[in-house]
Amino acid sequence: MKNILIKINYDGTNFHGFQLQPNERTVEGELNLGIEKTVKHPVKIFYAGRTDRGVHAEGQYANFYSDTTIDIGNLPKVLNFNLPEDVSVVDAKYVPDAFHARFDAKLKKYRYVVHRSRYRHALLRNRAYEYPYDVDPDRMREALASLIGEHDFNSFMGRGAIVKDSIRSIERIDVIEDGDFLYFDFVAKSFLKNMIRIVTGTVLEIGRGQREIEYMKEALEKKSRKAAGPTAPACGLYLLDVKY
Amino acid sequence: MKNILIKINYDGTNFHGFQLQPNERTVEGELNLGIEKTVKHPVKIFYAGRTDRGVHAEGQYANFYSDTTIDIGNLPKVLNFNLPEDVSVVDAKYVPDAFHARFDAKLKKYRYVVHRSRYRHALLRNRAYEYPYDVDPDRMREALASLIGEHDFNSFMGRGAIVKDSIRSIERIDVIEDGDFLYFDFVAKSFLKNMIRIVTGTVLEIGRGQREIEYMKEALEKKSRKAAGPTAPACGLYLLDVKY
Repeated sequence: MKNILIKINYDGTNFHGFQLQPNERTVEGELNLGIEKTVKHPVKIFYAGRTDRGVHAEGQYANFYSDTTIDIGNLPKVLNFNLPEDVSVVDAKYVPDAFHARFDAKLKKYRYVVHRSRYRHALLRNRAYEYPYDVDPDRMREALASLIGEHDFNSFMGRGAIVKDSIRSIERIDVIEDGDFLYFDFVAKSFLKNMIRIVTGTVLEIGRGQREIEYMKEALEKKSRKAAGPTAPACGLYLLDVKY
Repeated sequence: MKNILIKINYDGTNFHGFQLQPNERTVEGELNLGIEKTVKHPVKIFYAGRTDRGVHAEGQYANFYSDTTIDIGNLPKVLNFNLPEDVSVVDAKYVPDAFHARFDAKLKKYRYVVHRSRYRHALLRNRAYEYPYDVDPDRMREALASLIGEHDFNSFMGRGAIVKDSIRSIERIDVIEDGDFLYFDFVAKSFLKNMIRIVTGTVLEIGRGQREIEYMKEALEKKSRKAAGPTAPACGLYLLDVKY
């Protein structure tokens, strides 16, 4: 049996989240079906991580053991034939036997896409957060700087999360301006439930001047979800890549 | 009655083309309904031009006469409320009485989006032409240069087009490389049916070395659809903007 790592791309719009659920259409459910149909034997699949309902992925990863004789270069094509149109495999390679898509993930990179426009754009529906207010990127950069490094991110954790602790370590957050688009790029080993969306919702309020720059640091220190701003919509978030 | 010009954005995927047709869902049909519902009286609407089935628009335009009292700055928002999610109005302004969205169009800018990848990407489905072959942008630029200016583009006209003549004048065609994406930006006062898609289908064959660079000029001179290459898929094409 060879250990195969695949890179996965999906449009989260029409899925009930990533994680397998009975009687719901999930990314994990569709992938499990498509992979087993392709390799023609039952497999246990390990995923890099789950994403919320409505969140997209340019680069989700999964590994599984298989004795399939399909050429590794053709495997994505065959898998794609057995997957629905809103999920696809864009790369496949052999990895060492001990490799695990979740445990070996060193860093995850997410992008939150904000579109600055007074009016909705049909081509961006479900793909970006349409934000009709002026925001100051430098104010936001200054506020986000207080989150870099290891902290207790309890204030930025969605309700109902089951975790050992809410301490996480953020490597970097970049604010990138690209025409009418604003990207927030987050890099960390792991994130809490809704963490990126709550940080983004909070920093946008700072960016448009509704809150002071210090509000971010204060929210962090209060260790309470009530201390932070709103959760930005799922449709703006993309799992861009995982570094192994 | 004031003459109002609106800028329109749409995802062409789920429309049976732009032009009004009985018993089919078209962009024009949805816009007519949404505009009349908004201004609350019958209107005659003039569009900059039609697009093929599956083609998208970042910037289609239309004008109509109305005595609506809705503030012009709020008009897109109200129109968007009365339009389906795959079409939206992104700007509105008053124009002189004699202004006509089609007759006053000086230049139209279209972009054809090619994604260079061996495998399909779920997030790009219906939004780009997935092209798995290596192409040489400089070969393509050289071939496209022979199309600039006024020519009889009969070889690059889709079958079934009803036109006075097939002479058109192309201002410019830019080949832009952006990571895995390749954009072909076309600027002209007007284009023939399927013209951009046939030019793109032909130049991609030249780019990947299936055809010589001279093939483009020869195809042009033969004035026959059979002399040119295939029609690239509609999903890669975007009407970006119209210059008035």
